[in-house]
Amino acid sequence: MTIFENAELDHTQVENAMAPEDSAGLRQLYSDFDQAHLMPLWTQLDDLMPMHPTPRSVPHIWKWSTLYPLAQSSGTLVPVGRGGERRAIGLANPGLGNKPYISPTLWCAIQYLGPGETAPEHRHSQNAFRFVIEGEGVWTVVNGDPVRMSRGDLLLTPGYCWHGHHNVTDRPMAWIDGLDIPFAQTNDTTFFEFGPDELTDYSTPKSSRNERLWCHPGLRPLSGIHDTVASPIGAYRWEYTDRALTQQLLLEDEGHPGVVEPGHAAIRYINPTTGGDVMPTIRTEFHRLRPGTATQTRREVGSTVFQVFEGSGSIVIDGTEQQLDIGDLVVVPSWVSWSLQADTSFDLFRFSDAPIMERLHLDRTHLEGTTR
Amino acid sequence: MTIFENAELDHTQVENAMAPEDSAGLRQLYSDFDQAHLMPLWTQLDDLMPMHPTPRSVPHIWKWSTLYPLAQSSGTLVPVGRGGERRAIGLANPGLGNKPYISPTLWCAIQYLGPGETAPEHRHSQNAFRFVIEGEGVWTVVNGDPVRMSRGDLLLTPGYCWHGHHNVTDRPMAWIDGLDIPFAQTNDTTFFEFGPDELTDYSTPKSSRNERLWCHPGLRPLSGIHDTVASPIGAYRWEYTDRALTQQLLLEDEGHPGVVEPGHAAIRYINPTTGGDVMPTIRTEFHRLRPGTATQTRREVGSTVFQVFEGSGSIVIDGTEQQLDIGDLVVVPSWVSWSLQADTSFDLFRFSDAPIMERLHLDRTHLEGTTR
Amino acid sequence: MTIFENAELDHTQVENAMAPEDSAGLRQLYSDFDQAHLMPLWTQLDDLMPMHPTPRSVPHIWKWSTLYPLAQSSGTLVPVGRGGERRAIGLANPGLGNKPYISPTLWCAIQYLGPGETAPEHRHSQNAFRFVIEGEGVWTVVNGDPVRMSRGDLLLTPGYCWHGHHNVTDRPMAWIDGLDIPFAQTNDTTFFEFGPDELTDYSTPKSSRNERLWCHPGLRPLSGIHDTVASPIGAYRWEYTDRALTQQLLLEDEGHPGVVEPGHAAIRYINPTTGGDVMPTIRTEFHRLRPGTATQTRREVGSTVFQVFEGSGSIVIDGTEQQLDIGDLVVVPSWVSWSLQADTSFDLFRFSDAPIMERLHLDRTHLEGTTR
Amino acid sequence: MTIFENAELDHTQVENAMAPEDSAGLRQLYSDFDQAHLMPLWTQLDDLMPMHPTPRSVPHIWKWSTLYPLAQSSGTLVPVGRGGERRAIGLANPGLGNKPYISPTLWCAIQYLGPGETAPEHRHSQNAFRFVIEGEGVWTVVNGDPVRMSRGDLLLTPGYCWHGHHNVTDRPMAWIDGLDIPFAQTNDTTFFEFGPDELTDYSTPKSSRNERLWCHPGLRPLSGIHDTVASPIGAYRWEYTDRALTQQLLLEDEGHPGVVEPGHAAIRYINPTTGGDVMPTIRTEFHRLRPGTATQTRREVGSTVFQVFEGSGSIVIDGTEQQLDIGDLVVVPSWVSWSLQADTSFDLFRFSDAPIMERLHLDRTHLEGTTR
Repeated sequence: MTIFENAELDHTQVENAMAPEDSAGLRQLYSDFDQAHLMPLWTQLDDLMPMHPTPRSVPHIWKWSTLYPLAQSSGTLVPVGRGGERRAIGLANPGLGNKPYISPTLWCAIQYLGPGETAPEHRHSQNAFRFVIEGEGVWTVVNGDPVRMSRGDLLLTPGYCWHGHHNVTDRPMAWIDGLDIPFAQTNDTTFFEFGPDELTDYSTPKSSRNERLWCHPGLRPLSGIHDTVASPIGAYRWEYTDRALTQQLLLEDEGHPGVVEPGHAAIRYINPTTGGDVMPTIRTEFHRLRPGTATQTRREVGSTVFQVFEGSGSIVIDGTEQQLDIGDLVVVPSWVSWSLQADTSFDLFRFSDAPIMERLHLDRTHLEGTTR
Repeated sequence: MTIFENAELDHTQVENAMAPEDSAGLRQLYSDFDQAHLMPLWTQLDDLMPMHPTPRSVPHIWKWSTLYPLAQSSGTLVPVGRGGERRAIGLANPGLGNKPYISPTLWCAIQYLGPGETAPEHRHSQNAFRFVIEGEGVWTVVNGDPVRMSRGDLLLTPGYCWHGHHNVTDRPMAWIDGLDIPFAQTNDTTFFEFGPDELTDYSTPKSSRNERLWCHPGLRPLSGIHDTVASPIGAYRWEYTDRALTQQLLLEDEGHPGVVEPGHAAIRYINPTTGGDVMPTIRTEFHRLRPGTATQTRREVGSTVFQVFEGSGSIVIDGTEQQLDIGDLVVVPSWVSWSLQADTSFDLFRFSDAPIMERLHLDRTHLEGTTR
Repeated sequence: MTIFENAELDHTQVENAMAPEDSAGLRQLYSDFDQAHLMPLWTQLDDLMPMHPTPRSVPHIWKWSTLYPLAQSSGTLVPVGRGGERRAIGLANPGLGNKPYISPTLWCAIQYLGPGETAPEHRHSQNAFRFVIEGEGVWTVVNGDPVRMSRGDLLLTPGYCWHGHHNVTDRPMAWIDGLDIPFAQTNDTTFFEFGPDELTDYSTPKSSRNERLWCHPGLRPLSGIHDTVASPIGAYRWEYTDRALTQQLLLEDEGHPGVVEPGHAAIRYINPTTGGDVMPTIRTEFHRLRPGTATQTRREVGSTVFQVFEGSGSIVIDGTEQQLDIGDLVVVPSWVSWSLQADTSFDLFRFSDAPIMERLHLDRTHLEGTTR
Repeated sequence: MTIFENAELDHTQVENAMAPEDSAGLRQLYSDFDQAHLMPLWTQLDDLMPMHPTPRSVPHIWKWSTLYPLAQSSGTLVPVGRGGERRAIGLANPGLGNKPYISPTLWCAIQYLGPGETAPEHRHSQNAFRFVIEGEGVWTVVNGDPVRMSRGDLLLTPGYCWHGHHNVTDRPMAWIDGLDIPFAQTNDTTFFEFGPDELTDYSTPKSSRNERLWCHPGLRPLSGIHDTVASPIGAYRWEYTDRALTQQLLLEDEGHPGVVEPGHAAIRYINPTTGGDVMPTIRTEFHRLRPGTATQTRREVGSTVFQVFEGSGSIVIDGTEQQLDIGDLVVVPSWVSWSLQADTSFDLFRFSDAPIMERLHLDRTHLEGTTR
């Protein structure tokens, strides 16, 4: 398609031909608009239809060294139980006003469960996952299936699955939760139900039943031959993730394809019934960079969150480099450029709203030159 | 799945077990949260995760008898041209604060073009349509293809299509625009480019080229065998819509299937390359009720807008009946019950965000008994 | 992928290193193979796995001037009715031995119905269509819906639809039937049921109910929102086909896209619920060439049949040109090159097994230079 | 849809109303048909369109105790090499005349490779797999990636993949090959190319590169995010298959879902990029029955082959029970009833043409009462 000359302009370079001189008539018109619940496009086109995404949310880093002690304090001061449901502390993007949203689509929290505590069962339309960067001893019970939570594991509770948690140890445990709460609330899609105050199963098996049925590479049980909207796998174990990344880097060492770019191994967690994302609104991935490497700088439509799992490095967001240590969480808003840079071997968990963008054909990526 | 006893409760019936007594420590904790850009879930669960959708947007009716004169006044007072781009007056849902959004996902405006006026070309990522309830004489030029706009027609300008409009007559013309501006802005997906100030083609053919290529029932040009994200049809003519509805009612008269419920004919506008919705984010339909009939009362996830095209009747929203006349626009927020009721033969154009809900598996419908 | 040097060889250029010298032991081995229902690959690789498709079916032309009189004779000599079911005379590819198959996948017949005759109702798993090149006066009743058959119409009776035919005039009528009988028989997928001897509806409406519900361009009844395996349209009328082709050529005259190649207009008949082929195993298209033009020579995996509808021209098959007149049928086996050449304006109906090839990812096309 | 009274009849119960008395005219007509390459439907409807599938192929069992010695003999008598390509001995269904087809769609052979032998590289459009019931020491090189072949492994070489085999040990090895050769030949879809006489890589790694990249449950490399027509996994290891089946039976022991029917564990091998079958035309599964159990008797459209991997039992085909021991192969034609019955714990590999049937919407299953 012809790219017209004007296509290069932005709003600031264009004089608004629709700005009439002030007059009593015009003031009356605008007042009538107000009365009738109307707002003209021509006075706010720049805001409504900017040249490219202009997110209100901002890039922001939450340090694990801040988060974890605050979670501990809340463990002391606030009981967990029915009504509040979870001792989860949401990361509130500073650009989104007084909302507990890490981005316009995503909610992210640190959740904390003390020794012997139980978070009661409930279910909701929102899709949820948990990712564990340290600790162990909690089981989450998903539709009656007890799922061990351990370091490096990704745990799913897709929309409408009943779930509760309990800590069987004498030590506390914390992890992060990711949900599509903002998207659900903005678009008015939320449903919620209370389940039993007690969990439906207090057993603590090493492997959940869903893993035993589904976690065999390239195999699908004949009893589960119908595709499901979300993944039937409730626990993606660190052992497998680590092994997959290790193999990609070894293949690169041997001169074979495997890494996504030089020095950069990465996997996407998938729904084995479709090969697609684990849940309809949330993408989850894990990335590993070799020491001294960087990812190609890119902009993407949609918001994304990283949590450092191992090692140290930095992220260059919109040209500004910021240090990242274990447990640190960083959000990158839509169309803001970013690149990860590894000091040591650098492991990061990532989640994003990419499935929303792709399913609605709103996705777009711009790759820039690498900066390191 | 077992529905637990608690599942019947709502937030007001459950005491929050996570409301600790006030204390200096607690106040310090909450203050630390603020400092660290954190917000606890347990104090705002009811707001964040309500039992069912609790839209901020409200049901609202805009009378055509108010809209049209205000559009006329703006035609006198405000020129149309580059920078403001369109003389479009957005319907601002009273519940959504100071935003020109008819719902959280949709923007709807009355656009007005005076005799001989031209709205310059531009394109954007937002998906757009126009629907005409009266008048004629404007051509919209979509990717260089001039498309006549006439009464009852649905006209598409899907994301990234260049488009401009001009009025070739000595009479003004008004119509409604529907876009996914709020969704694009909330989710930071918007791109915009200015095109030429003058239109690329001022000819005024009766049929656009896309219609000549694509509007043959059950046929697809071999030159267009690859599926497209949005419909290649730019104009859905009233002649066809009317005929399809007429036939459904005749089939009902003859005792054959065809109508969607007794006395209620309805069509969905589709992308002929897939059989699905015309654009990835917006559904468009047309409904016709026989005099004296009503649609079954229903609640649906997602927001919907009706415009009366012909006849008169009412809509019962959340139990309250309101009169609707030609041109009137009414928005129904998510999960609010509604039923249309026909005094005369009653024709309504409808658009909604249903494709968003369905593609993300967030759709849900509850049918109630009919009320009339 | 590297293309190795040997990749250019064919079987005749390669000596079989697996041809041992004759010996008693070898003869015993081959005899033992026979006994045990075994056959070695190494003695028949060339036949089993040739370098490219080597169809047993051959290109062949059936002249309408031969077919029609024979159909007339059978109308005199053979009654129509239960048991034989249809007065249909199958075109038997000379290369396929004593089988009534026009190709390995397709069956094609001329069917003839005399004045006042009725072909009783039945249904089967095989997908079927009829195409009419002359005459009128027969109605086919599909699942109880009477469908007029007229010149230029494509009529569908997809798998498992009940259907019968009757001639309401005092003149005979003939048309062609196309089915996937060979594919069904070879692969053992066939089911058949007898219906009533008398038709379920003898009325003779101009438009069938399915047309009244579905034949509105770009529109879909809300009562038919679930996708169907085969098209819900029972009759694709000549009026629409002709109009679509006419418009493509007019667009070409005006310098706009539309034709599939210069001077060549073409449409594919589609299932409006998916935009795909009308039935899972059979593709149907209509082609129109301007006088003096030719289609690009091509080879395709899968077999295809053309019937001339209007005008005259020729087909160059594997380098040999053969004249085609109205009603003539020609089959092109898999991977045999073909090009259509138009003397006058040249209209051809086409059907093929392309959906089988595409759904199983066996499709492949090779385009050569045009020959005229 | 109404099921008419006649629907219960079959061809033998219906008198053919289209059998005219013999006459000179009729004989002339039929002779003219012959001349013109035409065949009437009414004389052969029963054959062409039977009431249900009437396969020419028959159920048949090949005993491993017969197959393996004959493969050994051919190892002595017939060298392996270019031209014949493979020392593969096809199982020829006794019902299919002089064709090396195990069913109308599938080819199955025992392939034998002596100590130190090499089968040269080639590629073809046909999809192929190998399944190993005993032995080890052969590597198959697929697109340059050496893949170990060991007991219980399923190995894939989908259409157009280059592949060759070599035996690095001083003992022979035999396995079964499965391909869609009959389908490709009948439908004229075959392409074949010779590759190098020597293999492109003689290394013998324990794990192939494709396994190292793809065999991590629920994980997908970001470098492989585009879906592929066939599975990127070249080796499905016995270790995983065995573990998956073991877990299903343990879950059954514990009272949880998992098995496909009581006492019957089963997995399907899948393409991890889609969750669907490993190749477009061939389905592969593995079944395990507890001692003393039987599968529900069923008929299915399409042909299927079982090979006993471990244990003993029988198959009841069309009411006749036949003993099955390790290595035995049995083919069940379309719509023939079958049930597996386990004496001991009973392990069977299965392959079939089910993807063809499902993709073309020809699949159909009838479940009967269990027989044991």
